[in-house]
Amino acid sequence: MDIKAGLLKKDKRAAARLISMMENGESEAVQIIKECYGMTGHARIIGITGAPGVGKSTVTDKLAKQLRKEGKQIGIIAVDPTSPFTGGAILGDRVRMTDLNTDPGVFIRSMGTRGALGGLSKAVHGAVKILDIFGMDYIFIETVGVGQSEIDIVKLADTVIMVMVPGLGDDIQAIKAGIMEIGDIFAVNKSDRDGADRTAAEIEAMLDFNRSEEYRPPVLNIIARDNGGIEELIRLVEEHWEYENKSGSYKKKKSNRLKAEVMDIFRDSIMRTVHSMSENTNIINELIQKVMDKQLDPYSAADRLMDEFTENQRHKF
Amino acid sequence: MDIKAGLLKKDKRAAARLISMMENGESEAVQIIKECYGMTGHARIIGITGAPGVGKSTVTDKLAKQLRKEGKQIGIIAVDPTSPFTGGAILGDRVRMTDLNTDPGVFIRSMGTRGALGGLSKAVHGAVKILDIFGMDYIFIETVGVGQSEIDIVKLADTVIMVMVPGLGDDIQAIKAGIMEIGDIFAVNKSDRDGADRTAAEIEAMLDFNRSEEYRPPVLNIIARDNGGIEELIRLVEEHWEYENKSGSYKKKKSNRLKAEVMDIFRDSIMRTVHSMSENTNIINELIQKVMDKQLDPYSAADRLMDEFTENQRHKF
Repeated sequence: MDIKAGLLKKDKRAAARLISMMENGESEAVQIIKECYGMTGHARIIGITGAPGVGKSTVTDKLAKQLRKEGKQIGIIAVDPTSPFTGGAILGDRVRMTDLNTDPGVFIRSMGTRGALGGLSKAVHGAVKILDIFGMDYIFIETVGVGQSEIDIVKLADTVIMVMVPGLGDDIQAIKAGIMEIGDIFAVNKSDRDGADRTAAEIEAMLDFNRSEEYRPPVLNIIARDNGGIEELIRLVEEHWEYENKSGSYKKKKSNRLKAEVMDIFRDSIMRTVHSMSENTNIINELIQKVMDKQLDPYSAADRLMDEFTENQRHKF
Repeated sequence: MDIKAGLLKKDKRAAARLISMMENGESEAVQIIKECYGMTGHARIIGITGAPGVGKSTVTDKLAKQLRKEGKQIGIIAVDPTSPFTGGAILGDRVRMTDLNTDPGVFIRSMGTRGALGGLSKAVHGAVKILDIFGMDYIFIETVGVGQSEIDIVKLADTVIMVMVPGLGDDIQAIKAGIMEIGDIFAVNKSDRDGADRTAAEIEAMLDFNRSEEYRPPVLNIIARDNGGIEELIRLVEEHWEYENKSGSYKKKKSNRLKAEVMDIFRDSIMRTVHSMSENTNIINELIQKVMDKQLDPYSAADRLMDEFTENQRHKF
């Protein structure tokens, strides 16, 4: 299969294959993305985050279905950094299979840490670009809102929806300010439960305390299961998007995002070379023996490794 | 002051200055150590570790005084990675001033994270080499036994004395196996207190459980304040040293240690270059602007940074 041609012909299998190649750290995948990079920038990227059990998948599904009614093409990336095998996420896919995944305008992909050479974040960045090139109008990144790696992933999004549920109580206090700060919109799901208004009020109080910017994230009560508030949520996403563009903060955000991504790829590429060098026991052992014999000091041995590194890189180009 | 000449003439101020230069990441310090590296390998390096309050400083002081009686030259490096200003350690120095530090055969230095460019571990490695070149017979590295950075530091030692006190009880259980494993000798200090024998028995039980090697760390009750058990402790250090040499495990340990150190210096040097590149906003901003304008993709931008990196390194040599 010609992956690149398949991707451009909107073949979902080609997209799926390319994402796998990206996960496996195959340089051919990077090559294809490089060649098609000019086609990116069309998709709107929406992050859906929140604690386990708040109903992130349901929110994503309902949003996706609503946008499908408007004829939009949808990509969904369900990220589970805690799973080495995306086991949970695969189960999630099965459940979804019945409705969303049979829709030709929807592409769903689970991503865990399994085989994500160079980090899950890099693979997810790649997958987003692939789905953007594919021609998706909206790409959802769904991830549990815990840990630095997930915050890094969700920073990819143009708009981040933080999903919560009533009765979190002290949990809201426990949520680190850093996590609250990545939410552009707060959705209190299952808001037919007791305490929904109180949870919303607590979020508002957190926002009073934490946010200093001009934009104030709206807090919306929804009942995703029954489609309650889903249209309103889409409207808030649009409003956020308009604000970002009008205020110029989108451009600044995107530039910072690209900078972080480029530095990540750069560091990762360096660390991979360092790692493969440390696996080359011949060179290392020879150097260490020289240090043991006092023919060389540790600093000069490290300098030699740096020469080796530079030499390796020179041969690459 | 000619630092190198001063060091070779056993001028303590030169040693102190050189350690500061090492902490500040000055390349001249590395150059001097490189030139004198052939003179290292004389000193015996003894790690003293344990929880706060177990009496590490007292144990170190008494061991140092005993060894001074035998005419040995002593270096003491008191490491406090938790202190950005070595505040606590400086106070410790003051207390010591009165007796040990006025002894011309003793050199005491506190090291915290303050200004330790390239990491405390690298600075401590440097300080040990400097004191070794200076001509110290014994170098003590005293550090609180918590955290990975301290474990890394104490791994520098030929022999690690783990200091404990009676009544730790559950604390012993709480001590991670990884930390127990770095102890070559266990000293139960303040053993005139209730429960000293029980603590010793608990340590023995831990050792039964954790150690699989041929060498079994001895457990010794001491009362450092009254000099109780200090001579015996020195004898155990000698025994450990003899065992290590006879069994060949010293050579293996030293080789692993050097490998870890060389890789650390190498990684640190790479990361410093990366860091200084990320500070060079001109290059980065230009690249990011190109990515924003779709003239370049993030992967190719990272490749350009790698070229820049290699170019930087090439100019260095």
